[in-house]
Amino acid sequence: MSKYVFYYFDAKALGESSRLLMAYGGQEFEDRRHTDEEWPAIKPKMLFGTVPLLEIDGKQYAQSKAISRYLGRKYGLVGDTPEDALEIDQIVDFLVDFRLKAEETSSRLMPDAAVRERNYAAYSKNVFPDYLEKLNAIIVKNNGHLALGKLTWADFMLAGSFDYLRNLLRMPDLSTKYPAFQQVVDNVYSIPQVKSYADAAPYTEE
Amino acid sequence: MSKYVFYYFDAKALGESSRLLMAYGGQEFEDRRHTDEEWPAIKPKMLFGTVPLLEIDGKQYAQSKAISRYLGRKYGLVGDTPEDALEIDQIVDFLVDFRLKAEETSSRLMPDAAVRERNYAAYSKNVFPDYLEKLNAIIVKNNGHLALGKLTWADFMLAGSFDYLRNLLRMPDLSTKYPAFQQVVDNVYSIPQVKSYADAAPYTEE
Repeated sequence: MSKYVFYYFDAKALGESSRLLMAYGGQEFEDRRHTDEEWPAIKPKMLFGTVPLLEIDGKQYAQSKAISRYLGRKYGLVGDTPEDALEIDQIVDFLVDFRLKAEETSSRLMPDAAVRERNYAAYSKNVFPDYLEKLNAIIVKNNGHLALGKLTWADFMLAGSFDYLRNLLRMPDLSTKYPAFQQVVDNVYSIPQVKSYADAAPYTEE
Repeated sequence: MSKYVFYYFDAKALGESSRLLMAYGGQEFEDRRHTDEEWPAIKPKMLFGTVPLLEIDGKQYAQSKAISRYLGRKYGLVGDTPEDALEIDQIVDFLVDFRLKAEETSSRLMPDAAVRERNYAAYSKNVFPDYLEKLNAIIVKNNGHLALGKLTWADFMLAGSFDYLRNLLRMPDLSTKYPAFQQVVDNVYSIPQVKSYADAAPYTEE
């Protein structure tokens, strides 16, 4: 079996989807989690200076979506046709668009408090509800999944980043307001090998 | 042959890569270009309320990268192995990260002039040079391409958005400062069927 080493912060956020997918696929991996303090020393060693990063037998691959798509393909979670793959890709990109808007209200990524709070006030009125409604309708239509009416790697993208997204949106009640989102999360985390990984993984808030 | 209809603004920007790929593949398509004034009436008819959008026999698919990846696969531009596809995907996402940073300095996308100019001052010093150097080195290493040392759909992503990127960076001399970028553009536009399309397409500044 190839040797996998996965590099990311000690957080779920953009890294957890790949960890969950490796757990799903029964792929053993070394889970290298670094602190903010360690990051500057690690950064120059990463292919693009970024994490998440997956090293396969010493070769580095970057970018969270790209890595998760690769693992999804490997474990049969990309549908059957090129059109199926497109339907998954489009919803993943839509989900990422949503996250990127939400990150414009993050204290970590938008240090200017005035801009951040202005963004939050505007987006929580005009942007977030639209994404939430659209995604909710898509999940309902797909029986608790994001695409193809069944489990795909897109579900792992949402499940892995759900706590992060909820914090960005400042919506502790996200699961009760939009139960469909929680359904996707539960559908992923209830898979036995995913549950085993998650139960054993270090606790992180997001 | 399936009926393709492609919706986007009358611009290259995020839409041109897919148009160039369809030209490359010999796929006829209806090229629906709308003005800013027409957009509000079209938006509610689009799958996610966004363009680019590709309609195949009446079924809508959204998201520029997802569409271009689909076309790239269809026309044999995704490499030979899952690892090849990953290598392409990671560089496309890296390129998009770059564009997203650059868009934070765009008058269209960042209406607040003070924030926009503060971003531009900071990024042109600390962010853009790093992306440009890294991408330049990758292109040089790949013989005028973004991945695998040969033509892939990643090259179409850069070629189609090059004018847009140059304007965002406010670098009219981008091609002379980083000739490798121009090499990718030339490698794509010199393909006969791509050239034919481009010669006949409406002129747009970016």
